[in-house]
Amino acid sequence: MIKVSVVGAKGRMGSHVVDAVNGAQDMELALTLDAGDDLHAITPENTDVVVEFTVPSVTLDNVLTLIGQGVDVVVGTTGWTEDRLEQVRQALAAAPRADQAVFIAPNFAISAVLADYFAKLAAPYFESAEVVELHHPNKVDAPSGTAIHTAQGIAAARQAAGLAPVPDNTETDGGSRGQVVDGIHVHAVRLRGLNAHEEVLMGNAGEQLTIRADSFDRISFMPGVLLAVRKLAEGSHAGLTVGLDRFLDL
Amino acid sequence: MIKVSVVGAKGRMGSHVVDAVNGAQDMELALTLDAGDDLHAITPENTDVVVEFTVPSVTLDNVLTLIGQGVDVVVGTTGWTEDRLEQVRQALAAAPRADQAVFIAPNFAISAVLADYFAKLAAPYFESAEVVELHHPNKVDAPSGTAIHTAQGIAAARQAAGLAPVPDNTETDGGSRGQVVDGIHVHAVRLRGLNAHEEVLMGNAGEQLTIRADSFDRISFMPGVLLAVRKLAEGSHAGLTVGLDRFLDL
Amino acid sequence: MIKVSVVGAKGRMGSHVVDAVNGAQDMELALTLDAGDDLHAITPENTDVVVEFTVPSVTLDNVLTLIGQGVDVVVGTTGWTEDRLEQVRQALAAAPRADQAVFIAPNFAISAVLADYFAKLAAPYFESAEVVELHHPNKVDAPSGTAIHTAQGIAAARQAAGLAPVPDNTETDGGSRGQVVDGIHVHAVRLRGLNAHEEVLMGNAGEQLTIRADSFDRISFMPGVLLAVRKLAEGSHAGLTVGLDRFLDL
Amino acid sequence: MIKVSVVGAKGRMGSHVVDAVNGAQDMELALTLDAGDDLHAITPENTDVVVEFTVPSVTLDNVLTLIGQGVDVVVGTTGWTEDRLEQVRQALAAAPRADQAVFIAPNFAISAVLADYFAKLAAPYFESAEVVELHHPNKVDAPSGTAIHTAQGIAAARQAAGLAPVPDNTETDGGSRGQVVDGIHVHAVRLRGLNAHEEVLMGNAGEQLTIRADSFDRISFMPGVLLAVRKLAEGSHAGLTVGLDRFLDL
Repeated sequence: MIKVSVVGAKGRMGSHVVDAVNGAQDMELALTLDAGDDLHAITPENTDVVVEFTVPSVTLDNVLTLIGQGVDVVVGTTGWTEDRLEQVRQALAAAPRADQAVFIAPNFAISAVLADYFAKLAAPYFESAEVVELHHPNKVDAPSGTAIHTAQGIAAARQAAGLAPVPDNTETDGGSRGQVVDGIHVHAVRLRGLNAHEEVLMGNAGEQLTIRADSFDRISFMPGVLLAVRKLAEGSHAGLTVGLDRFLDL
Repeated sequence: MIKVSVVGAKGRMGSHVVDAVNGAQDMELALTLDAGDDLHAITPENTDVVVEFTVPSVTLDNVLTLIGQGVDVVVGTTGWTEDRLEQVRQALAAAPRADQAVFIAPNFAISAVLADYFAKLAAPYFESAEVVELHHPNKVDAPSGTAIHTAQGIAAARQAAGLAPVPDNTETDGGSRGQVVDGIHVHAVRLRGLNAHEEVLMGNAGEQLTIRADSFDRISFMPGVLLAVRKLAEGSHAGLTVGLDRFLDL
Repeated sequence: MIKVSVVGAKGRMGSHVVDAVNGAQDMELALTLDAGDDLHAITPENTDVVVEFTVPSVTLDNVLTLIGQGVDVVVGTTGWTEDRLEQVRQALAAAPRADQAVFIAPNFAISAVLADYFAKLAAPYFESAEVVELHHPNKVDAPSGTAIHTAQGIAAARQAAGLAPVPDNTETDGGSRGQVVDGIHVHAVRLRGLNAHEEVLMGNAGEQLTIRADSFDRISFMPGVLLAVRKLAEGSHAGLTVGLDRFLDL
Repeated sequence: MIKVSVVGAKGRMGSHVVDAVNGAQDMELALTLDAGDDLHAITPENTDVVVEFTVPSVTLDNVLTLIGQGVDVVVGTTGWTEDRLEQVRQALAAAPRADQAVFIAPNFAISAVLADYFAKLAAPYFESAEVVELHHPNKVDAPSGTAIHTAQGIAAARQAAGLAPVPDNTETDGGSRGQVVDGIHVHAVRLRGLNAHEEVLMGNAGEQLTIRADSFDRISFMPGVLLAVRKLAEGSHAGLTVGLDRFLDL
């Protein structure tokens, strides 16, 4: 049985994690902590893996503290920059256990992770590519970080394959052609009733490939979270790992 | 048998019209004319209805000449402004026959005409609405005239129903939210392999309605052209009629 | 203020109705009843409109009792046959108030009601038409009642327009062409993650029209329920009305 | 310059191949043959690679003859069974050149090949999976060979990963649930206006992944044909290779 503690256990995501751990036959719930609780209560004696879903302003401190406690950490909070990741790597180099592991994923939805991965694989074979993301209207940023990441991956794969820029003879446009990310047009739709969705469109003469990921509910993140917990518990992923695609057998 | 002449018969659209008329059991092909040919060859003796598919720079003159010849005209050429339409109305008022008719349609694809019509009907019942159009990358304008027309129709229907503006909490955007037409966001995708496509998305809490029209080939305009020819030949549409939805039984 | 009572108030749908009535500025919640409660507590003094969301085995008795109490009723429970509807009509003919009204809808999701309505309007203009419905895998019947209703509507509209059967040269098929309802092929997809979705596909040479309704959550029924309550409260819909499209301005 | 001969040059596919070879800067068209022409005219002196697009009844004889002539062959004709493939392997073992190569692909559309490949990669990560294929109504078989192949690939990947059967509580069905291929439901839509399309749907609680390939026109096969010609001309693919995915860098 993998002993799992949850930090941010009363939050929107954390409460789903608590349910998911309770429902997993190979896991048992250890501690559940929230804002104000002392993370030093988490130790290798009571916990194998911690799942941390809090807010960007406190997640780095939380992770550094947990590394010091000698436990592995799965992090679902967003807002990680290269500078912050480097601090995690350094903390791991000085961690109590030699094989200690931290896993950080910007997106735990398997459909979204696969769509992003397939977009990169397919990109060299198509003359055209665009990205459309669709979200609920309460989202404050546009386009989504996931869509920007997908567009960057497509652009890099096209460049590596020596492709010319996407064809586009538009002469007059009042803004409908969207935001251009590394040469790839990205469009953001905001619609009541939606949650988080991404569609990648690629085209050649006479054909189109469409890859679409729909996340209707944050419960869709749970299989990815449990997968990450299991991978860290196996003990073969020492150090910092970023991105759920690293744990998929692709 | 309806006697149909075609002006612009060697053009991309006109050649399809010639084929379609030849294939229609209730029509016979009369004259086929092109640039340089004298339109005065078309008379009520040899022609019931003329189909005009040429270019914006000559279509007004063609239509005025044909009205003077005493024949009905179905016009598929684009570029019609209110001022030009008014000239057609005045010419019809002084036409040789009292019941003479001209029909002008910006789009003859029945799927596109219905999508536009359904969007207006549905608009009052949804909190959110956006339009995405997708075309081949050789198109020079973005968004398409059809998408602008659809967005305007949605906006007018929302206003008539007293709806609040569409919800949108976007605070930071680099251009991905598209062009705003009368309060409705419009997005334009350009992809090799595509022809002309429009998708209307509407949403309420917990539900979405999607209406999509795909025109894969200009042959899709022919049923609409033949329908218009038949409606004018019936003799009950004297004067100027604009828009194929006027001839659909909706 | 419209006084609304809810029968089946603790059920999955009823509890959403209670919330929706509480959130509507022009309504106030009157009585909330459930299995075991006496419906005779509902009277014209405390209630203008009753919303009944229970189960097929009790809904007819409930509606007949409520008609006898002299109140208008909006019914969301399914399982209504023509025989049952006739009993409601007869009860209304002998009701305490001359202008008493009952409204029954098999589907309150506006997107689904509009998709069904648009499918009928579009049907005469397309050579081909098929219906694909997609639901969660716990659904016990296939295809959905809504999909059958849509297919029947398309078939009737095609017949009224004198269309030939849909073209289909299939010679060998192991069952993939789906169920044929009045000549229209209907397909049912069952997928974890989905709720209730319907897609209507129509095609002519060179073009396609797609109408899709997605119901992600039963909260999507609430705007339709509130609309029906308001329509009955207006007092101009005496007798039995079936189908939400009757209350949409189409 | 790669010298390319075409067998079946006047056929629907062959004539596109002739155009594609003429348009490729690294290829030159050698011989173009059709029914009745003697394949012995093709020799290593005038031809590096032959593209064969004929009919199932003659393709095996054509390929065996061409192997005897000492040239490489790219085959686009369908109807290849394991028995036929084995005859090609044996002929290659006794071929004039030691490094002689034959490439056979059931589908040259890159979008379709990628969709099939991605479906296999994604299959282990989703509880549900179904396949919907959509074609023009003149197609005589249902479902398409491509859809059966995709369903088989999904089923094999699920079995290898130890997944349970797809969830499905359907109790009553009149045929709408489609054809079951190795446990995967496959649906076939036939619609005027369409050409060849496949959609793979996968779902987990709260999420969906959709992969769709649209072939609007057989011109979409040309990039795959030219890719195969180039791969054989490189000289590093001796023997028989089946499937375009073998030549994609995935």
